[in-house]
Amino acid sequence: MPETFVIAQGGGPTAVINQTVAGAALEVRKRHPGARVLGARHGVRGIRDGDYVDLSAVPEEQLRLIGNTPGAALGSTRDKPDAAYCDVILKGLQKAGADAFIYIGGNDTSGTQQILTDAAGDRIAFVHAPKTIDNDLEENDHVPGFMSAAEFVAGAFLSVDLDFRALPGTYVGIVMGRHAGFLTAASAAWRLDAESGPHLIYVPERAFSTERFIDDVKASLARHGRCVVAVSEGVSTADGKALVESLVPADRLERDQHGNVKLSGSDLTAALERALATGLPGKRARVDALGYMPRGAISAINAVDAQEAFDAGAFAVQVAAEGGGSVALQYDGTRTVLKKVPLVNVAGKTRHMPDDFLQPDANALSETGMAYFKRLVPEKYKIGKPFV
Amino acid sequence: MPETFVIAQGGGPTAVINQTVAGAALEVRKRHPGARVLGARHGVRGIRDGDYVDLSAVPEEQLRLIGNTPGAALGSTRDKPDAAYCDVILKGLQKAGADAFIYIGGNDTSGTQQILTDAAGDRIAFVHAPKTIDNDLEENDHVPGFMSAAEFVAGAFLSVDLDFRALPGTYVGIVMGRHAGFLTAASAAWRLDAESGPHLIYVPERAFSTERFIDDVKASLARHGRCVVAVSEGVSTADGKALVESLVPADRLERDQHGNVKLSGSDLTAALERALATGLPGKRARVDALGYMPRGAISAINAVDAQEAFDAGAFAVQVAAEGGGSVALQYDGTRTVLKKVPLVNVAGKTRHMPDDFLQPDANALSETGMAYFKRLVPEKYKIGKPFV
Repeated sequence: MPETFVIAQGGGPTAVINQTVAGAALEVRKRHPGARVLGARHGVRGIRDGDYVDLSAVPEEQLRLIGNTPGAALGSTRDKPDAAYCDVILKGLQKAGADAFIYIGGNDTSGTQQILTDAAGDRIAFVHAPKTIDNDLEENDHVPGFMSAAEFVAGAFLSVDLDFRALPGTYVGIVMGRHAGFLTAASAAWRLDAESGPHLIYVPERAFSTERFIDDVKASLARHGRCVVAVSEGVSTADGKALVESLVPADRLERDQHGNVKLSGSDLTAALERALATGLPGKRARVDALGYMPRGAISAINAVDAQEAFDAGAFAVQVAAEGGGSVALQYDGTRTVLKKVPLVNVAGKTRHMPDDFLQPDANALSETGMAYFKRLVPEKYKIGKPFV
Repeated sequence: MPETFVIAQGGGPTAVINQTVAGAALEVRKRHPGARVLGARHGVRGIRDGDYVDLSAVPEEQLRLIGNTPGAALGSTRDKPDAAYCDVILKGLQKAGADAFIYIGGNDTSGTQQILTDAAGDRIAFVHAPKTIDNDLEENDHVPGFMSAAEFVAGAFLSVDLDFRALPGTYVGIVMGRHAGFLTAASAAWRLDAESGPHLIYVPERAFSTERFIDDVKASLARHGRCVVAVSEGVSTADGKALVESLVPADRLERDQHGNVKLSGSDLTAALERALATGLPGKRARVDALGYMPRGAISAINAVDAQEAFDAGAFAVQVAAEGGGSVALQYDGTRTVLKKVPLVNVAGKTRHMPDDFLQPDANALSETGMAYFKRLVPEKYKIGKPFV
């Protein structure tokens, strides 16, 4: 039986990642009375630096309030540990007397747990608890954090489409997502009818062509009198380059510390504005990056997502008692079930949106895709149909 | 007693402007059984073109659903009629047999009603029903549409601040508002404590200096380890020029059809990104424009705002029976009361945020300002305090 659990959060926060902390901490109290739960501040940095919150001492009521709070309450990190860093983490865990480490995060986080398992899986149980708004983890039907972010995006596009019914023009909303288009595609979940936007959806899984984009917008304007577009920040041209790379001069392109092209700045917004101004001169067009807003929006916390995130934390404690692994949310045809899967199946892998979620020859969801998003983000509001 | 009402919506949509249509249409049924209510499509354009929806024929249940719907269900327009255009509108109203015209909108809309009143106020009752997310109408304590937009902004900044507690850096959120800073200042309504963002607020009512901005951000980073900033798109430098004008080369500056500098494009976002990259080289910074999202967000419809917007529509019918005027929402110290005020007091005027809403020497709300926003946008969520 584990006696000291260390828990940490990695990568971008979500609206419900703290539910997973609360779920794990409260499950330890239930299954392992007397065991300690140490929350490492800022992910593996806290383990490296011995910087912990004693979650065992936090009253249940307070933990439940923390669960309701968006963002990562323990702090997070973008550190992607290599073998040497993992050695430092192992020493930190040993110093803390840890016999289980639950790390909540996405594919990078599961990758860290894989390295640690290979090094010391016989002494410490390493558990990955899933979290990502990108919804891009293998073995999972969907991932905690996604439904809430998807609900934000569905609501934002429903709302903006209603705005553009009233004052027609072209709207492009840029949605987070470097490699997987799930979150962008969720923009269609709350379409009212066949007239509704988003009229066009561009995801990283399909090659993007600016020419085709302008033609698509023209066709949509001709048909609907307006055009609402959802585009992933990570869309790429046929040569595999990020769109922002083909639209922005190389000397003006920003890169992050890992050398990846920075998708989050205003470059892509400006480039799409220029493309629309050139392709459709004089026509009203607006390009907004939704930016950080979908990620941890308190206004869009989905109750099912919150519960599943809590349950995933509780289940992680069971997985720890079984020696470690990755927690996965699978769908059995009627409901979501929690499963323990091998870390290696998830670590460092990216699940892409299935090709059949999109229509073969159009930038729109297929029935299969629509059914998936309607299951995860069912309609929430009772509204009427505008007169225009 | 009026027998034919024409109703229309002008300017940018809001989350609750349709409540005002529903409130007016249902009040006519109650007060003037048998009277007709014609909804003009796309504001005064519908009157010009004889393009109406017969709202008298729409079942109550459907009208209430429309009320719940963000955006302008009748369509809207940016047309600002001059005397000649107003003459065309008058002919249109006469053709429709209108004896009352209720126009829902902001200061431009009330200006149109003023011109029409001067021309034919003895024959037709012209009523202005208030609507604007800018909250900038004279005679009003607050304006329908503002509370919902403010709730979106308060929630967005609370959420982003929690995100930046987890992964520190500088975040700048650009909020709509050319002349009035109310919506930007609402970003502080849901601050958790003295540590919470937004740490800096810049509104059009105070001169903006890029040097001071960088110094402010540095001080905030030193004090809080992160810096969350809310800035109005309309902030101006000491010479009265929009900030975007002083940051963007004149030949690259976009202007709208009225010759106003376009505030809504990515120019300001890019300029602030550059200012931060230059002033704080190598530091993590993100600039997002909230764009259209606060304006009609279905996720942030405030129940009080919805009810007040409905009531303002109903009250507009009473004002019509009294010969016309502008509907104002005033505050008597304990509650909001509806008043009829002269159109001339509102028409074409802009209410600025009172100077004492801000601290004299800091870019932060004063107690007076905080009390105003806490009254309009009371806390809604029960959450905990993060461990970082």
